[in-house]
Formats: sequence, C-alpha cells, structure tokens
Amino acid sequence: MSKFWSPFVKNLVPYVPGEQPKLTKLVKLNTNENPYGPSPKALEAMRGELGENLRLYPDPNSDLLKQAVARYYGVQPNQVFLGNGSDEVLAHIFHGLFQHDAPLLFPDISYSFYPVYCGLYGIKSAPVALDAQFQIRVEDYRQPNAGIIFPNPNAPTGCLLALDAIEQLLKLNTESVVVVDEAYIDFGGQTAISLVDRYPNLLVTQTLSKSRSLAGLRVGLAVGHPDLIEALERIKNSFNSYPLDRIAIVGATAAFEDRGYFEETCNKVIASRERLVAELTARGFEVLPSAANFIFARHPQKDAAGIAAALREQGVIVRHFKLPRIDQFLRISIGTEEQNQALLDALN
Amino acid sequence: MSKFWSPFVKNLVPYVPGEQPKLTKLVKLNTNENPYGPSPKALEAMRGELGENLRLYPDPNSDLLKQAVARYYGVQPNQVFLGNGSDEVLAHIFHGLFQHDAPLLFPDISYSFYPVYCGLYGIKSAPVALDAQFQIRVEDYRQPNAGIIFPNPNAPTGCLLALDAIEQLLKLNTESVVVVDEAYIDFGGQTAISLVDRYPNLLVTQTLSKSRSLAGLRVGLAVGHPDLIEALERIKNSFNSYPLDRIAIVGATAAFEDRGYFEETCNKVIASRERLVAELTARGFEVLPSAANFIFARHPQKDAAGIAAALREQGVIVRHFKLPRIDQFLRISIGTEEQNQALLDALN
Repeated sequence: MSKFWSPFVKNLVPYVPGEQPKLTKLVKLNTNENPYGPSPKALEAMRGELGENLRLYPDPNSDLLKQAVARYYGVQPNQVFLGNGSDEVLAHIFHGLFQHDAPLLFPDISYSFYPVYCGLYGIKSAPVALDAQFQIRVEDYRQPNAGIIFPNPNAPTGCLLALDAIEQLLKLNTESVVVVDEAYIDFGGQTAISLVDRYPNLLVTQTLSKSRSLAGLRVGLAVGHPDLIEALERIKNSFNSYPLDRIAIVGATAAFEDRGYFEETCNKVIASRERLVAELTARGFEVLPSAANFIFARHPQKDAAGIAAALREQGVIVRHFKLPRIDQFLRISIGTEEQNQALLDALN
Repeated sequence: MSKFWSPFVKNLVPYVPGEQPKLTKLVKLNTNENPYGPSPKALEAMRGELGENLRLYPDPNSDLLKQAVARYYGVQPNQVFLGNGSDEVLAHIFHGLFQHDAPLLFPDISYSFYPVYCGLYGIKSAPVALDAQFQIRVEDYRQPNAGIIFPNPNAPTGCLLALDAIEQLLKLNTESVVVVDEAYIDFGGQTAISLVDRYPNLLVTQTLSKSRSLAGLRVGLAVGHPDLIEALERIKNSFNSYPLDRIAIVGATAAFEDRGYFEETCNKVIASRERLVAELTARGFEVLPSAANFIFARHPQKDAAGIAAALREQGVIVRHFKLPRIDQFLRISIGTEEQNQALLDALN
C-alpha cells in the first residue's frame, strides 16, 4: 500500500489467470485453449495486414468485424459491441450496466472474474447457489437485483442451461440486464443471441479465444439491444478509443467468415470430449455433463489437489480451484487425441 | 438513456478521436501518426508469431516486452507497466492513482482525453491555465491536488517543458503523483524516466504509436516506482488479464530493440518539421515552437476552420479543435516530404 494509491486499490483482489508456462513441452490442459490452431484463412488475413499500414491507427469502431459478426448472427451492426477479449467486454458491462442499488446476482460457482469486477467498480453482489447437481435453478433468481450474469455453459462446471430456461428467466426478470456469457457455447449449446430482438435487457457475450482458436489475439464481443450497446460504446470511448488492433480486426473477421474450419474443429473437440469422458468414467471418475471444451471431474477416492500435483510431475497441467464445494474437482481442457491420451496415461 | 444503464453513463462525454478516413487517397495529417512504417525487424518478428500458437493465451505479464523496455531505459522490469495503447495505461492511472479528495490538476490546453477519464472515474479536476505563450508555468501547480498530469511535449501545442522544470515541479509537489505523458518525447525532448529513481511519485507514460510507428498495434507503457506500478497491475489484473496480444508483445519488443531504424525515422521527422515550420512561417503563419511530430499553427488573417475546410476539399486533412483559446489554431502532423509539400501546395 502506498499513500499515492486511490483508496479502493488497497482492498482490490485481482483475478488470477491459469498458468501460462514458458516451457513448451508440457501438455497444457489448464486454460481451455483450443487444441487446434486458428483458421488458415484468419492467419492469411493477418499476414496481409502486417506492413506499413501498422503506422496508422485502426478503425476505432472496427466496423469490418462488427459487420461480420452481425452477418453471422443475423443482427444489425449497432447490436454488436467489440473489445480486447471478452474479459474487457465484461469489465465494461459491469461498469456500465450493473451499478445499481440492488445486488448483482451470479451463481456461487461460476467465472471467478465476476467478483473481481465487482471489487473494481464497487458493485454489491449476492451469489446464488447452484443446486446439488451443480445446475442453475432459474427460479432462484427471482429477487431484486442490479443485474444477472452467468456463463453458459457454466464455468468451471461445463454444465449447460437450456435456451428455454434462459427465456423463462428473461420473462421473470424484465427490469434489469441479464448477461449470458457464452465463452464456450459453440461446443454444445445454442446461443441466446436468437432472443436479443425480443428481450431488450438481454446481452450475450462471446470470445474468439475458445472455439475460434484466437486466445493469443484478444477479441471478444457482446450482442444485444442497441441501447445496451450504446452504454458500452460510451464507456469504451471514455476508456480507450482503439482496443482492437489492425491485425485483430482482420484476423477475427476472417475467422468468423471461415465457417467450414470452425465447424470442423469444434466437432473434433466435441468428439474428443465424449471419448475422454468415457475413459475417465471407466477409471472411476465422476464427470459433470459438459457442453464446453473442458470437463469438470472428481474421483470419489482420490484427492483432487494430489491428482493435479501428480499430473504436473508427469508434465500434464490441469486446473484445480481451492474453492468451497469444488475443491475435489479438476477442470481439464480438451486437448488433441494425443494430449488426452497423455493425460490418461499419466493417471494410470 | 435507458433504465438499464449505470446512472453515471447518462452524463458521460466520450473522447472523440481524430478521423480515420476509409479513403486511402487523402493526405492524412490529422492524428499524428508517423509517416514512415514500423521497423522492418518489428514486422519480421510479428510475422514469426503468426501461426498455430495464436490458439494460446499470451503471457499475461508480457515479460519479454517489460524486459526490453527496462533494458532500453536502464530501469528494472518491475518499474514498467504495459497496456493496450497509452490511452489504456492512462485510464488505469486515473482510476488507480487519482481518486483523492483534492482536484486533479492539468493544463487548460492539453490532451482532451484527460477530462473524459475524470468523467469515467468520478474524479474532480481543476484546469491550470497555460501562460500567454501557451507554456506550462510550474509554480502554478503549487496547490492542493490529487495528482498532476500533463503531456510533454504538450498536446496539441507541441511545446516542451524542460527536464529541469519537471524536476522543480517534483521538488515542490511530493505528496501526490505527477504523471508526465511523453507520447511525443522522442521528437525533441529528454525523457523524465531518468528521474524515476529519485522521485517515487513520478510516473512517465509513453506510446509506441508515434515514434515507433505502431499506432495500429496498440501498445503503451508507464515507468515509475514499483509501488506505483503495483497499483496499476492490480487494476489491470482486475480488468483484463491479457491486454497485449501475442503479436503486439513480439512486435513492440523488436521495435524497442531496433534503435537504428528508430533514430533514423525520428531524425527524418524532425528535419521535415523544421522545414515545414520555415515554409509556413514564410507564408505568414505563426507556429508554436514544437518538439513533437506535429505543429500547432495559426494565421493572423485567416480563420482556422476555414483553412481546414479548404484543405479538406483538396484532400489534405489536419485537425481543428473548437475549443477556447485554440480555435484559431490548426494541428498539423508531420508527414513525408511529399505529404508536407502537398499541404503547402494546397495552402497556396
């Protein structure tokens, strides 16, 4: 602590991202990256942008990418907001839409960045417990609130809330914003973007870091009613005019346009997930039903931290959260077939 | 305005960046970009990063770049903070270091993003008038304050405050943070980074958008005491773990390492600036002394908005600020010799 700090900084508890080890030999199943590289067309588009023009600022509105996202989802460009990864998009959402008197609601087990944003912007929150099967119960959100946010599929459980349950939630919560954080939706769920034209308080966020294999590029987005997008644009334009660089704009646009590669790689991840779940179940693990590119698993007889440490010794890293209710689980990202096999071998 | 917005958003007045025209034929002298492209070594480094590894998150700490900046300036890596352009760095500074009871001080004529950040974070501010020659008077800052910030060279005037005047300011203001925003320092000033080890309340910000020709890549930095950097890291890690993408990290690192190209292009811009000042002066313009890659000029007989409109008709864009005291000035970025000649021709 220093006398020069703004007072709130003293009590700020930052988010801790999964380890990004500098050793390349590790089998890295700890941060839910895609095991397959980005679309070759995205790489080609980025290569074309690498030149003299980098001396010029990017388009502050990233219109090219807004139009590509709008076309992809059948919405208008003014329903699309873009940011430097969905974490930045979420930060602006917390700042611009969740500062109200009542508490913000989110599941007790969900993305651990949510309480951090609350600390950053002085937002009160009230965790809502998942049920005993780690599922969201929509009726539990029927209480005064400044907003509701949850990942779908949820993180780190991987469990999906069906689209009709989301619509039920929107019908019973009309006076505050509902954010569906779809970082993992492409691996087994239906996007709620189909509902944004009917529910002006619905905002859906997505990232290009998972299903589009561009974690290293930093692009995220939100889709919703133009009034909600306007609040986010005001914040963004009062914070940083150009969060997306020139390379990110063209790379992300090409990634959205290359549906074939996207579908092929998503399907490979899904198939690998199903095989891994079967293998782990055969080894005595209990695996929560996953619609994501990771699974959440525990072993009835073995301590999770112990398993993680043993895996690490064999060069396989997975994520373990020392948190109430889930400290006996491991979150394991879906790798290539070879990586998944390396995990299974290391467990024997 | 929507009932869903956080209340402060209603009164937020965003920053308006200079126009980024989508026509490429224009002579674009409006946003202080470098007329020369980035270092070929930076482009090569970025090309090498364009591949499979973009599926992986970047290093959240960007250690490679922190080390390069630390080596360049002879400081330690824990004295370096990095962000998505210096605008993001400034935003975190306002949030993390300027929220105190007294008002923040900055020149009445300076970077027009400063009051926007104050609006975003609820910071009181008190503008301090430049003198009649548009210079900062250090003694005017001797008053209770939550912090002091100014661009050096100042924007949009281009005027430099000498290093000994900055040290004088630091001696008379020890109880709050002093930020020297050195976006343009490489075009004619001496960096205040040489003072950070002696003044624990000094923070110096820089950008790679100007002298390093990487406006399209989005990298900015701050250098100061580790305690100040820690506040910024806490904010950054509570906002977005990965503001710098993989390509930006390697490109910016290579740009800092390529001193030869950097010095050559800076010297070319400086030489062109001196020629342009002489030509404009010969045409009756009054030009403020500039240490930047732009000049601030007025014509005693001609209306600035009128000149800007006439230039625009001939395909040359410069920046005009409709603001008190400076509405008869034009801010003209230094272009290539050919671009500067096109400007002069258009003025005839």
